[in-house]
Amino acid sequence: MAKKQKTFRPKPRLPKGMRDIRADEISAMNNMLAKLAQIYELYGFEALETPAFEYSDCLGKFLPDQDRPNAGVFSFEEDEDADWVSLRYDLTAPLARFVAANYDQLPKPFRRYQTGSVWRNEKPGPGRFRQFTQFDADSVGADSIAADAELAMLGADSLEHLGLKRGDYQITMNNRKILDGVLTTAGIDPTAPENLGERLTVLRAIDKLDRLGQEGIKDLLGPGRKDLSGDFTKGANLKPDQIDKILAYLATGSHGTSEPKERAEVLGNLEPLVAQTEIGQEGLNELIEIDNLLNAGDFKSDRVRFDPTIVRGLDYYTGPVMEAELTFETTNEKGEQVRFGSLGGGGRYDGLVARFRGQEVPATGFSIGVSRVYTALETLGKLTKDKRRAAPVVVLVMDQEHKEKSQAMVQALRGAGIKSELYLGTSGMRAQLKYADKRCAPLVVIQGEDERENGQVTIKDLDLGAKLSKEIEDNKEWRESQAAQQTVKSDELVRVVKSMLAAQQEQSGNDGGAA
Amino acid sequence: MAKKQKTFRPKPRLPKGMRDIRADEISAMNNMLAKLAQIYELYGFEALETPAFEYSDCLGKFLPDQDRPNAGVFSFEEDEDADWVSLRYDLTAPLARFVAANYDQLPKPFRRYQTGSVWRNEKPGPGRFRQFTQFDADSVGADSIAADAELAMLGADSLEHLGLKRGDYQITMNNRKILDGVLTTAGIDPTAPENLGERLTVLRAIDKLDRLGQEGIKDLLGPGRKDLSGDFTKGANLKPDQIDKILAYLATGSHGTSEPKERAEVLGNLEPLVAQTEIGQEGLNELIEIDNLLNAGDFKSDRVRFDPTIVRGLDYYTGPVMEAELTFETTNEKGEQVRFGSLGGGGRYDGLVARFRGQEVPATGFSIGVSRVYTALETLGKLTKDKRRAAPVVVLVMDQEHKEKSQAMVQALRGAGIKSELYLGTSGMRAQLKYADKRCAPLVVIQGEDERENGQVTIKDLDLGAKLSKEIEDNKEWRESQAAQQTVKSDELVRVVKSMLAAQQEQSGNDGGAA
Repeated sequence: MAKKQKTFRPKPRLPKGMRDIRADEISAMNNMLAKLAQIYELYGFEALETPAFEYSDCLGKFLPDQDRPNAGVFSFEEDEDADWVSLRYDLTAPLARFVAANYDQLPKPFRRYQTGSVWRNEKPGPGRFRQFTQFDADSVGADSIAADAELAMLGADSLEHLGLKRGDYQITMNNRKILDGVLTTAGIDPTAPENLGERLTVLRAIDKLDRLGQEGIKDLLGPGRKDLSGDFTKGANLKPDQIDKILAYLATGSHGTSEPKERAEVLGNLEPLVAQTEIGQEGLNELIEIDNLLNAGDFKSDRVRFDPTIVRGLDYYTGPVMEAELTFETTNEKGEQVRFGSLGGGGRYDGLVARFRGQEVPATGFSIGVSRVYTALETLGKLTKDKRRAAPVVVLVMDQEHKEKSQAMVQALRGAGIKSELYLGTSGMRAQLKYADKRCAPLVVIQGEDERENGQVTIKDLDLGAKLSKEIEDNKEWRESQAAQQTVKSDELVRVVKSMLAAQQEQSGNDGGAA
Repeated sequence: MAKKQKTFRPKPRLPKGMRDIRADEISAMNNMLAKLAQIYELYGFEALETPAFEYSDCLGKFLPDQDRPNAGVFSFEEDEDADWVSLRYDLTAPLARFVAANYDQLPKPFRRYQTGSVWRNEKPGPGRFRQFTQFDADSVGADSIAADAELAMLGADSLEHLGLKRGDYQITMNNRKILDGVLTTAGIDPTAPENLGERLTVLRAIDKLDRLGQEGIKDLLGPGRKDLSGDFTKGANLKPDQIDKILAYLATGSHGTSEPKERAEVLGNLEPLVAQTEIGQEGLNELIEIDNLLNAGDFKSDRVRFDPTIVRGLDYYTGPVMEAELTFETTNEKGEQVRFGSLGGGGRYDGLVARFRGQEVPATGFSIGVSRVYTALETLGKLTKDKRRAAPVVVLVMDQEHKEKSQAMVQALRGAGIKSELYLGTSGMRAQLKYADKRCAPLVVIQGEDERENGQVTIKDLDLGAKLSKEIEDNKEWRESQAAQQTVKSDELVRVVKSMLAAQQEQSGNDGGAA
């Protein structure tokens, strides 16, 4: 091995689409996840953890936003010449496996939340990683539509608990059954196997409304659409009166209007379009029931609204669907004003547990895209990241022979609950101060020979020192300035460090706090 | 897809060596991890997260306790016909990659802690999983021996912060250099390439002291050993006087004695054995310095002791090594009294970053085996797991037509910070009560038709109800007993639920609390 090291030296690099996460982000993220867990438990969901990988046949081919089946996952053999396993691509497929395996012992409905990494073997890009975190709540075995209403409330309460103001976000709901009602009135039976492709094309077209606008959708519902690059997307080939029916349906909600409509108004708009079909009326009744429950919970349309343009993925969902998004625009990398986009979503699905058990098990879920919410909160300045407050006091080692004295000081500080560390290198004072600066240490503690002999110790505020040195032109005057440091009796160390830290915190509060 | 579901039904099963983790364990575990993070940050370590998999060449072949190189990991291709990646098997190899990749920007020493899952492709067994959690602290670029001393203190403080009593655990330290000194005095140059195998055989033999006893080690240092099954393990083939020197060295510590020796005594015992060799003296000086620093931090031999029988893995470590273990015996599956074994350990290593950069970077680390510590705390009854306190109040739905009433009650409870949920199925009262019981709900809220008409609500303590039904022989009397339930005005719901929950908590405190 010793020889091999000389001949082969690997390049230290991250796999594609992977990233390291540093302390300040971890801390803000953990804080966020803990707050989410709090709300999910308040709602009566219990935590579950499943392993990082599962047998590939158990995960199935249910990537919600994936056209190609089986693509997008990382797979490998469990042992040599053994079964294939895949890293989980979401938290819903493992839940289905768990519920199917433990069906008899579980309370039904089974309400669980889960957070953890998922992996997608997709093309990485800016902000698009191959490993990312989801935060899911699902009620499995819940046939009551109250389960769907509750997830919308959960979404709204979660985002507010994280610091988003009411009005800054919206939860938007729709029901797949209503679209199927519209298709029926347009003469397309959505349940007929030969129409599956057509229905999918319509769903896909609606999903592109935000990007392509009404004209683009019209083309996609009709003969097809050529984009600016000349690429042609095949359309659903619907007749003009069929297209009109779908466009009328899409116009029942708030999409494209500046003022969001009340839920009751959207329900009123939908009624004449679908009430004559069984499936449409069923979907409408479900939305009416959801509206009643939301009203009972005092969730008004400023938090949860109805909009028929919400599709949420292509296959997979069978009833109510929902999406959470920010309502305000942000500036993208190109400096353009853009909608921030989806923070998460979900809906009702019945097929996942049925894969294992044969019989359908009604289920509904909501998933938060943790890193998107994180970025949103960061953009809004809602994350507290104070590097200096998070960093330890650094006790310098001026004389390696007397390291124990410094160690004893560290011990005293830790004993008082003050984050602190001994400098663990063997470099000189300049390097040690540079180290403390790089760590963003709030204070450094120094005991040189003179101080040691006098039973004293010097505590220095590097940040304040740097500020003062900018203000004070005369270098000598700065060196002599005592404002940024204090030399005190050794046994006063803890008291003085505490008071200097308190002064810093007060100062940083005055400076505006969260940075 | 719909067709395929009918023909193929996968068996819902976990991959080998994997497990699901339920809510009560997750909660206790997160609690434990948060406490550890608190101590690690108090010590000035900063958090880091790295991805679940790395390029295989970056991880290298450094499994600490693995004889076969390259075995024991899960690997797959990053993309089709692309580079191989492996799930991380520990948190140290990714740290080395991270440090090498970011060397110039990092403060040095770089002090980081990390917790997360690691994966080993090893034979699973009872309590041995293929995915488990580690909690590591490492100081990279720390040439001061104070870094090693600090990790021993960190280990002790961590275990106590988790609830282990002083005396229930011990941190034991040793130094690889002292063993090399002993080998030198026995006429074996430990640095000569031709002696590498011999040195490894000696290390391995010492590592088996606990299991085989002094006689077994003697055989392994000599011609070899035949075990009870008849299998023969080749020995190091040392001469009797060489073996004596190693056995004398092993006897300098507390191993095999009932009363642990003070660190100073062990140092005194070691001195004559190795002081005449350069490497031995160096190792001894390092232990003396560690002793001084531990004394300065007031860490006595009841928390951190020295023992030359500690080896810690085979290759990998280059200086001080340490191990954390429980001092008391527990009962194993076979009913035998056994030592609980190692809770974690670590030591100084120099080669890992050198793999990437060529030059050696001094580093030292300590890793806690999270699930072992968890099991230890569980065995000692130090984990709080109160299912009923963790579970939500369940509001029953007596009439699907009036679900909104129940939803409004849930909303009121949640608004008061009380975990609660609406029953989300469509089954009758008996099934709902069964559900609440399975969930360990502390209370259920019921509003039947009569109550609704009278503006009332009934709150029922299922647990107390069950207890009372045992005590009360007369079934009728029990049904009429009001002790386990209260019917109150609807607007008193929150107040009464709060007081009934408080009464339960008081009761569970009287029952002994942590279960």
